[in-house]
Amino acid sequence: MKFKLTLAYDGSAYQGWQSQKSGRGVQDQVEAALARLFPGTPKLTGSSRTDAGVHALALVAHFETADLRMPVRHLPLAINSLLPQDIRVTRAAKAPGDFHARFGAVSKEYRYRIWNHPVMNPLLRTQAWHVPRKLDLAAMREAADLFTGRHDFTAFTANRPGELGDPVRTLDRCEIRKRGSEITCILQASGFLYKMCRGIVGTLVQVGEGRFPPPAVETMFESRDRREAGMNAPAPGLILWKVDY
Amino acid sequence: MKFKLTLAYDGSAYQGWQSQKSGRGVQDQVEAALARLFPGTPKLTGSSRTDAGVHALALVAHFETADLRMPVRHLPLAINSLLPQDIRVTRAAKAPGDFHARFGAVSKEYRYRIWNHPVMNPLLRTQAWHVPRKLDLAAMREAADLFTGRHDFTAFTANRPGELGDPVRTLDRCEIRKRGSEITCILQASGFLYKMCRGIVGTLVQVGEGRFPPPAVETMFESRDRREAGMNAPAPGLILWKVDY
Repeated sequence: MKFKLTLAYDGSAYQGWQSQKSGRGVQDQVEAALARLFPGTPKLTGSSRTDAGVHALALVAHFETADLRMPVRHLPLAINSLLPQDIRVTRAAKAPGDFHARFGAVSKEYRYRIWNHPVMNPLLRTQAWHVPRKLDLAAMREAADLFTGRHDFTAFTANRPGELGDPVRTLDRCEIRKRGSEITCILQASGFLYKMCRGIVGTLVQVGEGRFPPPAVETMFESRDRREAGMNAPAPGLILWKVDY
Repeated sequence: MKFKLTLAYDGSAYQGWQSQKSGRGVQDQVEAALARLFPGTPKLTGSSRTDAGVHALALVAHFETADLRMPVRHLPLAINSLLPQDIRVTRAAKAPGDFHARFGAVSKEYRYRIWNHPVMNPLLRTQAWHVPRKLDLAAMREAADLFTGRHDFTAFTANRPGELGDPVRTLDRCEIRKRGSEITCILQASGFLYKMCRGIVGTLVQVGEGRFPPPAVETMFESRDRREAGMNAPAPGLILWKVDY
């Protein structure tokens, strides 16, 4: 039987989603809980490999087990009772035999939070990027529009060119919202390259600071060179928000 | 010379605003920083005494010193460089000689955050109250309307009757907002009694759970008895949001 879990976590204390030799991957923590509930230490397959310090509200993962000894609706409570407070299973469901958390995802949404004020908000210090200089929202939105659509994102990924197959992705949404001192970038695509979200957001912020004019985004795309694009935004502002199948 | 500071802090690690023998009051931390910048170890007077675990985005405090050796606009940076990351001075200004952070406040706003979902959001685990049962928003709003206005709040404070003078306060705003699984209660008044916010929010949530019908709020007011009202909402959901002069 295959099961689909939806997971939320505060990534501050972990070295990312993926299993680590150190045991400090989020996956290690959840697999350790599953090992206490099910025979044969089931392995998880996650929808996404979030980096160290990145958070998730709804990462999806699947696992298989021969034997579920409880109603599936009790599964979140059972697993959560064995997990640290910074990792929670928010939902569990039976999944069809051909379900695959990674390859079946048709759309992923990330959100990136920025605190744009001379002084950091201490309540967001592990959940947002502190950008003290005033940002030009209009310029950032102009650049965001240039990111939207189908592009070769080689200049915005930490992968080496050609390292991981096709670098073309379609960004369906690149939206910038502001509420008080908090700016949120919403990024949605069927798939992202390694560190692509952080490369896009870092570039958007540098556009907002006047370091690049918005049309420079097109030159960056054409360069296919990571060094031509903007900086990587730091990990703690990023949240994997939603995965659709 | 008198100075006005605006302070934001994550209250999780502290025993409240007020100075403690243990040194674990937020006030102790800020006064220790001031002592390194100014002669004569200036003392702070805060607008509010937040409880252990309660947060602030804009608590106001004043202090006096004979000698400011820097432009006042440099003061936040100077103090922040001596403070832990969970406490920040967001603004500093010269204040008139008769300014008083506590007695001069004409309006205070608190916000209380609730995560209303069967499973807690790990990103809010120190900043919201986890209420797993579905809440009846309409009933809560009906009760909130009954809280608004001028009342004897004896039944909603941890003060003993008569202990701290006049128990009559005017709640100018008692509003309930919902966005996804997050419910926020906004409370505004010229002044609050000890633990009054948490008594009101605890009662509102128990109304939302069906434990009390909304009109019971009127009976609670009339009783002037803390035991007749609802529970105290836990500290970590509460944020001192704004103080006006």
